[in-house]
Amino acid sequence: MKNDDVMNIAKKRGFLWSSFEIYSGVAGFYDYGPLGGTLKNNIMQKWREYYVVGEGYYEIESPTIMPEEALKASGHVDHFTDPLTECKDCLNVFRADHIINDATGKDVEGLPNDELSQILSEEKLMCPHCSGHLTHVWSYNLMFQTIIGSKGKKTGYLRPETAQGIFIPFKRLLRFNRGKLPFGVVQLGKAYRNEISPRQGVIRLREFTQAEAEIFTDPRDKTHPRFADVSDDILNLYSQECQEQGKEPVKLTAQESLDKGVIASEMLTYQLCLALRFLKDLGIPDNVIRLRQHLTSEMAHYAIDCWDVEVETDKYDWIEIIGIADRTDFDLKSHNQYSKEDLRVFIEYPEPKQVKMLQVKPNMSKFGPQFKGDAPKIIEALKDMDASQVKESIDANGEYSLEVNGKTHLLTRDFMDFQEVEETIRGEKIFPHVIEPSFGIDRIIYSVLLHCYQEDDDRTILKLPANIAPVEVNILPLVNKDALNSVAREIHDNLRKNGIIAEYDTSGTIGRRYARSDEIGIPFAVTVDHDTLEDDTVTIRNRDNSKQVRIPIKDVYKTLKCLINLEIKFEELI
Amino acid sequence: MKNDDVMNIAKKRGFLWSSFEIYSGVAGFYDYGPLGGTLKNNIMQKWREYYVVGEGYYEIESPTIMPEEALKASGHVDHFTDPLTECKDCLNVFRADHIINDATGKDVEGLPNDELSQILSEEKLMCPHCSGHLTHVWSYNLMFQTIIGSKGKKTGYLRPETAQGIFIPFKRLLRFNRGKLPFGVVQLGKAYRNEISPRQGVIRLREFTQAEAEIFTDPRDKTHPRFADVSDDILNLYSQECQEQGKEPVKLTAQESLDKGVIASEMLTYQLCLALRFLKDLGIPDNVIRLRQHLTSEMAHYAIDCWDVEVETDKYDWIEIIGIADRTDFDLKSHNQYSKEDLRVFIEYPEPKQVKMLQVKPNMSKFGPQFKGDAPKIIEALKDMDASQVKESIDANGEYSLEVNGKTHLLTRDFMDFQEVEETIRGEKIFPHVIEPSFGIDRIIYSVLLHCYQEDDDRTILKLPANIAPVEVNILPLVNKDALNSVAREIHDNLRKNGIIAEYDTSGTIGRRYARSDEIGIPFAVTVDHDTLEDDTVTIRNRDNSKQVRIPIKDVYKTLKCLINLEIKFEELI
Repeated sequence: MKNDDVMNIAKKRGFLWSSFEIYSGVAGFYDYGPLGGTLKNNIMQKWREYYVVGEGYYEIESPTIMPEEALKASGHVDHFTDPLTECKDCLNVFRADHIINDATGKDVEGLPNDELSQILSEEKLMCPHCSGHLTHVWSYNLMFQTIIGSKGKKTGYLRPETAQGIFIPFKRLLRFNRGKLPFGVVQLGKAYRNEISPRQGVIRLREFTQAEAEIFTDPRDKTHPRFADVSDDILNLYSQECQEQGKEPVKLTAQESLDKGVIASEMLTYQLCLALRFLKDLGIPDNVIRLRQHLTSEMAHYAIDCWDVEVETDKYDWIEIIGIADRTDFDLKSHNQYSKEDLRVFIEYPEPKQVKMLQVKPNMSKFGPQFKGDAPKIIEALKDMDASQVKESIDANGEYSLEVNGKTHLLTRDFMDFQEVEETIRGEKIFPHVIEPSFGIDRIIYSVLLHCYQEDDDRTILKLPANIAPVEVNILPLVNKDALNSVAREIHDNLRKNGIIAEYDTSGTIGRRYARSDEIGIPFAVTVDHDTLEDDTVTIRNRDNSKQVRIPIKDVYKTLKCLINLEIKFEELI
Repeated sequence: MKNDDVMNIAKKRGFLWSSFEIYSGVAGFYDYGPLGGTLKNNIMQKWREYYVVGEGYYEIESPTIMPEEALKASGHVDHFTDPLTECKDCLNVFRADHIINDATGKDVEGLPNDELSQILSEEKLMCPHCSGHLTHVWSYNLMFQTIIGSKGKKTGYLRPETAQGIFIPFKRLLRFNRGKLPFGVVQLGKAYRNEISPRQGVIRLREFTQAEAEIFTDPRDKTHPRFADVSDDILNLYSQECQEQGKEPVKLTAQESLDKGVIASEMLTYQLCLALRFLKDLGIPDNVIRLRQHLTSEMAHYAIDCWDVEVETDKYDWIEIIGIADRTDFDLKSHNQYSKEDLRVFIEYPEPKQVKMLQVKPNMSKFGPQFKGDAPKIIEALKDMDASQVKESIDANGEYSLEVNGKTHLLTRDFMDFQEVEETIRGEKIFPHVIEPSFGIDRIIYSVLLHCYQEDDDRTILKLPANIAPVEVNILPLVNKDALNSVAREIHDNLRKNGIIAEYDTSGTIGRRYARSDEIGIPFAVTVDHDTLEDDTVTIRNRDNSKQVRIPIKDVYKTLKCLINLEIKFEELI
């Protein structure tokens, strides 16, 4: 299986391995090794090129530890849960929905616990491990919990997504953008999910890296100014309709997807195209990618439309590596409600509007005698109320009940007059909608390794694009002799000084060294041989086709720099 | 106070603010805002240029959650603690050593809890908050604790430093480096410290970012191959001696510091120089930096030598922003002992050595009758023992006690013979020593903001070096007119497409826009004016001295690219 070959090399050669091996390991945690660490950083930098530089979405960084209030507001304290059941005999714990799905083929994701319990019992499902009896289903929260500080015992959680860290300081972000929509903000960082028993390697991690963009838009204007740039891009769409009718995915241009109403908005379509361009740059070929629309049943209740970018794998079938959703105003509304901070945006009308409005006029002389010292506050509070609601209540019940400083006051018709006034309204306050492209960086790296891995003849090659390869060039003296080494060393040191990650290898035959170099994806090798000593030239070898070209030493840096940045193709040198 | 001015701007303009403000905040947590996020990433990328590209230390990434065993081995479970005392009246909790230090001026850091309790009681020290009585001192662990998984309740902690994540997979890292010393490995990422009541803003965070390098060296060879490159660098050394004798820091070259024995090794000296060059690149001037050597009393018991790079601030006095220590073999030895994995490195001798060794020869015929079925195992065990120790014991006590499978067997002289043999030894296994440069990224960013902030005349300028500034150029149409806007927009979009972070500002007078631009440290502004429409030229303005130069639009990208990368100076354009 290709997965196994790739993961073997990943472990052996220093891309990825299970963490804490010397302490018997802990499931769901991986280390990025010496090659993986730089590959990961290169991929994240490329992401920034697209979203921070290209799109102009500013990057923020918020803490990974969050206080309970914030995650109560986001819904994670109550709803970020898995339905679990325990075996009464072997005491193993399982996901109830998985047991049901495995045994019956039914997709029961999202059903309430009591319905899951009922199915377990009706279908007489037993422990998959020891065939023991299973308990009732309960909700297990997937957040890692901790305590902040020594006193007061403030509960905190490790964040389940980076997105929340963008919603919480929304007011500051809006101010930074001078109160104008649309604008985007991104965050790259760790997120956590305390899986009960993760068993899918790097595909299901308890600690993982996300890159998320939250694009705050006017709900009535989900266009993108540069949509024309992507309108001809081809999308391989596995829509709700395809899935429900058992059809294959359909290929449409971005423009067609929008025109036919397959994708909900221009902004969403643009973001899908951008994500695909990013994946193409990472070397993941088009033919292993599809865009799968969430079925209505699996979509979050607040979302309008949601698409997963999926990649085909031999071991895990299709896996989601990016999710792009229209989260509407759910998050900002929730935080607004819980925090009592006004998170709305003032949208100016193109033209101010003249609006007839009802105004309430307190009858000043009545308040003093009745309410004494409280009168001024009650008058102020009454003025702040929606006059038409006050009038409605008076008309219906003969009185209006007003709460001030925790006390309730009943006001009758004679406490006030109503009058109609004309006011100029410049705009209105609204909650922006949020379009969110959310990238799972670890799964993307897995997909890159998997799909860049190739066995040609008896060569193993990791065809990483040159501009994300962790080692950019390998310097190889043909034989391990002082005269060659001293030239080769100088080339190596000079490249390093100029910012190119060059390795140096003298161990074994040149063929073995090329093979090792190909296996870890070093795109170019510079070979120093006996001719070098005569004419100051070296060969540059291209990993992907083993072709070589001879160039003067003085051109090595400049040539490699252009090759690595993909400014020229190797073939142009020949 | 400069600190307050800088932090005001940092908050107002989007560099840094307290996290979770809408939920009343949580002490010890900060957000990096839209400008701070990119500034931070730029600084971390610059760090990688030095350590990953320049020094060739590979970057790894290990989890922030660690299992208890690993942190037991590192000593953090037992020793990463603060001595606390609680007020019996107001129930506030305090650091006992701080109370003593504040009241008596004595430095009691590191004293055992019972001695601290005794001092509190002898000095009759009371609660600094309400003058109530204080409890005995106890140890409070500073790690955030959590539970991994739902069953089995495996205790985990958020890592207190990134370094441990490098020590744990040491065997894999050594293999990646083909078993050879020296080599370096770095990690950049979050670390955590659950302070009881952090009150120093961004200086004392509960969640912070480290960049650490662990350089594994042969204990007998702490040289650096490129020491000559730094040997003339000037170091402002506040040595143990200076501190103890109340003297001012002394300026020495790197070579002198080494020759006079002020710094323990060449590698340590080189690392100090490298750290200083890095800070210089970030715009922190020499005259606010000193290298303070740890006093013997404050140094970790295992460390040979340790230096803090300190920066002067107006609010917090001198603060440590980098620590560079020789951790010896402490960490690898501890993990070796706890994990039972051999974490030593085989060092080959320059020449194989012929060594005379004592060998023990079991007297086979005696074992069977006495030990029956256990005999073979006991014979094997005896052969594995150090023969000279066995002989020593026999000579002294007449017997040797051998433990096999939990049973103790007593062997007398007649069970064995000794003979001297000559063996060829190619090398030996040793624990490498670790030199560790450890960077506190948040404090470095604070120092950069503080020391790049300047008030010239009535201008406020953030003199960030152009290659770390979060916004690289501001595009300004002189007036907000369509004709100018369309040219300016095109320049802006073209720069963005080519990877330059350009902003666009039409709001207010050109003077106000320059001022805003200076305040957030945008190094260059491109102004599009009426002449632009005539002759296709624009002005580029230099933030630091307000000088301007007029260049053709077609040269804007190339010129800015060189200016931002510090390849040319602005003055060269004039």
